[in-house]
Amino acid sequence: MPTSPNPYRQALSRQAANHVPLTPLSLLDWAADVFPARLAVVHGDLRTDWQTYRRRCRQLGAALAAHDIGSGDTVAVLLPNTPPMLEAHYGVAMTGAVLNSINTRLDPGAVAFILEHSASKVLIVDREYAPLATEALALLGDKGGRLPLVVDVLDPVHEAECSAAGTALAAPASTLDYEAFLAGAPTGFEPRRPDDEFDAIGLNYTSGTTGDPKGVVVHHRGAYLNAVGNVLSWALPRHPIYLWTLPLFHCNGWCFPWTMAAVAGTNVCLRRVDPALIFELIGRHQVSHYCAAPIVHSMLLSAPAGLRAGIKHPVACMVAGAAPPAAMIGGMEQMGFDLTHVYGLTEVYGPAAVCMKHESWQDLALDERVRRNARQGVRYTMQEGLTVMDPETMVPVPADGETMGEVMFRGNIVMAGYLKNPKATEAAFQGGWFHTGDLGVIDPDGYVKLKDRSKDVIISGGENISSIEVEDALYLHPAVLTCAVIARPDPKWGETPLAIVETRPDQTPVDEADRAALAAELIEHCRKHLARYKCPREIRFEAIPKTSTGKIQKHVLRARIGSAGAIG
Amino acid sequence: MPTSPNPYRQALSRQAANHVPLTPLSLLDWAADVFPARLAVVHGDLRTDWQTYRRRCRQLGAALAAHDIGSGDTVAVLLPNTPPMLEAHYGVAMTGAVLNSINTRLDPGAVAFILEHSASKVLIVDREYAPLATEALALLGDKGGRLPLVVDVLDPVHEAECSAAGTALAAPASTLDYEAFLAGAPTGFEPRRPDDEFDAIGLNYTSGTTGDPKGVVVHHRGAYLNAVGNVLSWALPRHPIYLWTLPLFHCNGWCFPWTMAAVAGTNVCLRRVDPALIFELIGRHQVSHYCAAPIVHSMLLSAPAGLRAGIKHPVACMVAGAAPPAAMIGGMEQMGFDLTHVYGLTEVYGPAAVCMKHESWQDLALDERVRRNARQGVRYTMQEGLTVMDPETMVPVPADGETMGEVMFRGNIVMAGYLKNPKATEAAFQGGWFHTGDLGVIDPDGYVKLKDRSKDVIISGGENISSIEVEDALYLHPAVLTCAVIARPDPKWGETPLAIVETRPDQTPVDEADRAALAAELIEHCRKHLARYKCPREIRFEAIPKTSTGKIQKHVLRARIGSAGAIG
Repeated sequence: MPTSPNPYRQALSRQAANHVPLTPLSLLDWAADVFPARLAVVHGDLRTDWQTYRRRCRQLGAALAAHDIGSGDTVAVLLPNTPPMLEAHYGVAMTGAVLNSINTRLDPGAVAFILEHSASKVLIVDREYAPLATEALALLGDKGGRLPLVVDVLDPVHEAECSAAGTALAAPASTLDYEAFLAGAPTGFEPRRPDDEFDAIGLNYTSGTTGDPKGVVVHHRGAYLNAVGNVLSWALPRHPIYLWTLPLFHCNGWCFPWTMAAVAGTNVCLRRVDPALIFELIGRHQVSHYCAAPIVHSMLLSAPAGLRAGIKHPVACMVAGAAPPAAMIGGMEQMGFDLTHVYGLTEVYGPAAVCMKHESWQDLALDERVRRNARQGVRYTMQEGLTVMDPETMVPVPADGETMGEVMFRGNIVMAGYLKNPKATEAAFQGGWFHTGDLGVIDPDGYVKLKDRSKDVIISGGENISSIEVEDALYLHPAVLTCAVIARPDPKWGETPLAIVETRPDQTPVDEADRAALAAELIEHCRKHLARYKCPREIRFEAIPKTSTGKIQKHVLRARIGSAGAIG
Repeated sequence: MPTSPNPYRQALSRQAANHVPLTPLSLLDWAADVFPARLAVVHGDLRTDWQTYRRRCRQLGAALAAHDIGSGDTVAVLLPNTPPMLEAHYGVAMTGAVLNSINTRLDPGAVAFILEHSASKVLIVDREYAPLATEALALLGDKGGRLPLVVDVLDPVHEAECSAAGTALAAPASTLDYEAFLAGAPTGFEPRRPDDEFDAIGLNYTSGTTGDPKGVVVHHRGAYLNAVGNVLSWALPRHPIYLWTLPLFHCNGWCFPWTMAAVAGTNVCLRRVDPALIFELIGRHQVSHYCAAPIVHSMLLSAPAGLRAGIKHPVACMVAGAAPPAAMIGGMEQMGFDLTHVYGLTEVYGPAAVCMKHESWQDLALDERVRRNARQGVRYTMQEGLTVMDPETMVPVPADGETMGEVMFRGNIVMAGYLKNPKATEAAFQGGWFHTGDLGVIDPDGYVKLKDRSKDVIISGGENISSIEVEDALYLHPAVLTCAVIARPDPKWGETPLAIVETRPDQTPVDEADRAALAAELIEHCRKHLARYKCPREIRFEAIPKTSTGKIQKHVLRARIGSAGAIG
């Protein structure tokens, strides 16, 4: 073939008229330009429209820029789901800096580690977390770390809550008040756009279950594409009313602060997960959508039915988490909420897989429908790849629903990398895919189902047993509130499954005989649902250790068992 | 401020795991992977699901690649809205080549020009256009141009139509049959992805109204973003049933072949615009969405109401065009179709502005609602900028609804440039914005309203008169079917408005006295709606010349008047 210059590449170049770096900042401008007077934020008695929301974001940007915050800098926040947190999701980026949303449930040592590792120059703290911040800053100071400029947020809703409860407000972590900080911002600030759409917009430390947290860097391009991707993958209508049940510090609220601009929706703020308050807000503001971890959905399910009285409108919700029990998915359906199951990690901006529903599933029996909906599913429309592979050979497993491999993602909704951790970045991106560390299978219809975390799989007699599969079976029993299945060392089989169970309050065994009877009943129950070798050999009734975000800490359970495998 | 290296740019680079060039090919894979058995294409008795649709696109790609088609090459098509046209929108890109969709209404000379200018190596022709292709190829041969490989498409629906009408099929333009071409494709073809998302995917010649057509090059990034942008800007649900009333050769059907993959919708093909057939398909397939030029909507409005019998489901439609008459927008609303008004040009991939509706408009009187909905509106959610500026100073006009300027776009949904025409590209992108050549104003709410094409504005006594505004007033009169207002040279005022009017069949004046009476009535009618200086000084009842796509050719009318301004 003769080679000739490609005529399409001659003189057809990226330039100002036809190429603008993708950034969520564009979406805010769109909403504020097109729907300036539409309700953007609701919080207590506060009502903010889109033009005011943008103005406040710009004020925050101006105030930060006046304090020399710019490209390459980090601004940390310790905030619940309040207006300042929503403002930070745009205002920080307007300076070119990166938003570091810190999990408010961490201990002071972890917060100090994050502030130091991220070299955060500013820390914006809600008064509720002032004691946490003060302790963390003291630890940071002790280590000789550079202290950030601290800004105190005093939220009227928090004040009212304290007043109602008769508790005193905490001492502020700083005398610099957030509203004064914004009011003091110079005028004439011009929000910056990223020079390169691959520039960082967010830094999110993974909570992990062991070791120092890793700083996941997410970029403007991915944030923009996932903000829009949420609309496609959830078939989100225009103007949804979105309740903030999901912590905004968790993967930037799965990019929904930016999605809300793309659809000119309304953000309904929520300081804490309280079923009574959640149902009240859903009814009062006609909330149409919310996202939450399985534990929140479970709380809503277990709440007295009277709290739901008066909610007649359709509510769509998303649930993520490594493996929500199938029983919960069924329960939400019976409650009349339209649940969509998603799966993701901080490294992929929150959900990047969705159990996309098929119309034909509606005709299936509830059990089968629940089984299908409980899967992690398929890639988001705007994610490029989701597969399950042998991590050594990088060969996909057959779509047989049986063969386990590691779940991997690839595409534009994958982090830039881990901050100051090239080794971890390289390992995570080995072979051109992001390795999740989760084990799964591919069903014949191409849907992925998680089987386990790599380190949680139980290998018994050479067979892999998915701890999740065993837990799913246990959750089908009405006595089980929470459970965790881990490997118990076994001289003959290598490992066998051991189940730790928290029972429902009204089903708690009262004595040893009762415990033995329930354990036998649960094992028998498992045998109805699982191959015999997968059933727990032992059931223990104990409290299950969890992280601040509700993740079960299997490593603590394993440590409790001990390396020698001694039980009890 | 001390400068230090940006920690976020260190070792956080684009790589295979986290960066994939944006391309509509990803959307096809998504739909075919996730909804393989869902209906993708309907044509006559043909039903094609998404996995089959992708398989056929790949076969087309394989067949083209086997004929040495690859990166930098051009594949031209002369096809109506049929499955091969939908297949071309992916299959060609899978080879790395560029799809050149030729307007089937052009004359042989224009087609020959396009084939030569684009250096098309393949031409796929529907049998209906074989005579056109044969003539064009003869002209190309006469000029010594390189002849493309020609592929003949014989559509069973066309055969059936010819048979029903008793007309003979045309002689094919080639003995190479499309189905044989696909069937002969080698196996093992691996679809290519673009190396760079800025690589070309489409080449669309603007019909223009004068001069040689210009080849607008559109790229994968823009096509992908606009495909998704259609979903946001139209609030498109999942699984729409989309009727192809809009020619696919027109700006790649406004990117809707790619949008349908993003929402796993169904394409209902349509060879020709025929109101009876359109209503029949809407009813039979429960069509939920369609796009069309104003003329098509007008035809549907004028069709006997009986044709609409049985259509009870909601239908959403988009209308584009420089200025649909307000009366038509009102009429569609009365017919019960939910009309969204969009505006764009080939250079911005079709629509890039939309008259986004506000809920509060529903409470307005019909007249005012129609007035607001008749505007060109605001930028698409995923377009970066739409404004009206003085093209010399590049200063935006005030948002006063009065001051005219040139309408301009900027962002990622703007062409790469004109093929082999750097001068035109540079002129179009002057000052970092794409200059549309349309004149408009910005209303106080930020919505843009077109006033005229730059060259169509009438300057009378130093005042600009928008010909569209005068036409809008005329369209409000029941006798007016079509009208065009142009400048008539005037010794005193410089120019004054002259209106050419086609009357409705039942209102045609029968003699000179009748014509004079109607002209007087129309002028009087205009005075009720317009400032006196804007009203036509003369009305003529004549046929109005139009292009093959229905655009009114004002330059022909101007030529008819003559440079001396002699009338009649």
